Amino acid sequence: MTKHAKISNAVIRRLPRYRRYLNELRKKGVDKISSNEFSRLIGYTASQIRQDLNNFGGFGQQGYGYSVCGLYNEISAILGLDRQYKMVIVGAGNLGQAIANHTYYYKAGFIVNGIFEINPRLIGIKINDIEVMDYEKIVEYVEENNIDIGIICTTKDAAQEVADKLCFAGVKGLWNFAPVDIETPDHVAVENMHISDSLHSLAYHMNKIAADEEEK
Amino acid sequence: MTKHAKISNAVIRRLPRYRRYLNELRKKGVDKISSNEFSRLIGYTASQIRQDLNNFGGFGQQGYGYSVCGLYNEISAILGLDRQYKMVIVGAGNLGQAIANHTYYYKAGFIVNGIFEINPRLIGIKINDIEVMDYEKIVEYVEENNIDIGIICTTKDAAQEVADKLCFAGVKGLWNFAPVDIETPDHVAVENMHISDSLHSLAYHMNKIAADEEEK
Repeated sequence: MTKHAKISNAVIRRLPRYRRYLNELRKKGVDKISSNEFSRLIGYTASQIRQDLNNFGGFGQQGYGYSVCGLYNEISAILGLDRQYKMVIVGAGNLGQAIANHTYYYKAGFIVNGIFEINPRLIGIKINDIEVMDYEKIVEYVEENNIDIGIICTTKDAAQEVADKLCFAGVKGLWNFAPVDIETPDHVAVENMHISDSLHSLAYHMNKIAADEEEK
Repeated sequence: MTKHAKISNAVIRRLPRYRRYLNELRKKGVDKISSNEFSRLIGYTASQIRQDLNNFGGFGQQGYGYSVCGLYNEISAILGLDRQYKMVIVGAGNLGQAIANHTYYYKAGFIVNGIFEINPRLIGIKINDIEVMDYEKIVEYVEENNIDIGIICTTKDAAQEVADKLCFAGVKGLWNFAPVDIETPDHVAVENMHISDSLHSLAYHMNKIAADEEEK
């Protein structure tokens, strides 16, 4: 991992978005882009972009702009996307299946090695060529296969217990889709994906627009 | 909608999280909570909590704390969760099916009325008692049924076209799961759910922890 000790969390949150846009530009064969052009595309101000990208410096040149490929590769390295990650999914319901099928992750270096489930009707089936295994065997599997990331697609009530077991087995990160905040020891990173929070924000913004229009 | 014109976007982003924790407290029969207790639970500082909740004032009392139910109801009203929303899903693949099955949304006032698909093999099946219909008929359906929200579970390439059609048909909000930022007219709210951005942040934090440990 390239060391950039002082990058703030807010900048880190924006990096995947920069990277997505740079990837689109790269695919379209665009070599360089100015902060003004990038601003129109991505919706951040040009000054915000310059400030963010200055954090890992050297890619912007006065009168030239940013090297699309250079910046894309640098951001990928900062995010740690220049290596591969082995993942297991816990919970083979619709959400677990949806994630297993997101072939995007395979391409980007995130590989689902196994899926675990307690429901005997699902154990043994294959999802996208990945076997659904008995949850009882998860600790052994994670240890033996040096799994990096556990993806939690269980119910709210089971999530913390599953998280504890995955941490015990040695994962380095948890990606949690259960609608509860899970806790991990300091050495295990966690991202809680609260899908419903996003729906609630949407509801707020819809009502805000309606209220603003009424006032007119 | 209760009017709170000056609440910042950052506060709005935190409201669904406050509401989730208040809901858990409410279910456990907790009547009131101090900002210090709330801080230990939710992980924001007590001063941040007081500042955030001051935005819609009147619920915190010195030496008493916040009324759990009062605050829960107030936040629900601000978010617009005191009414019902009719939704359609576009794309009946795994992700669309996962969302259709998230019964949580029904309970919370978000009702999936219909699912639309272009794949003839999926048209006509039922998911959770909701019929999968021909995407050709979506404009008519949205208009006739006063659909509020369109949920986009299509591929990246189809997403903007689907968004345009949904906006034309009269939805007031779009919840986009396709891995691309979609654009809407000013009168239509949009939430882009970039699941992979969250995975990329996780990768960053895992590598950061590893790098910090190496330095020790």
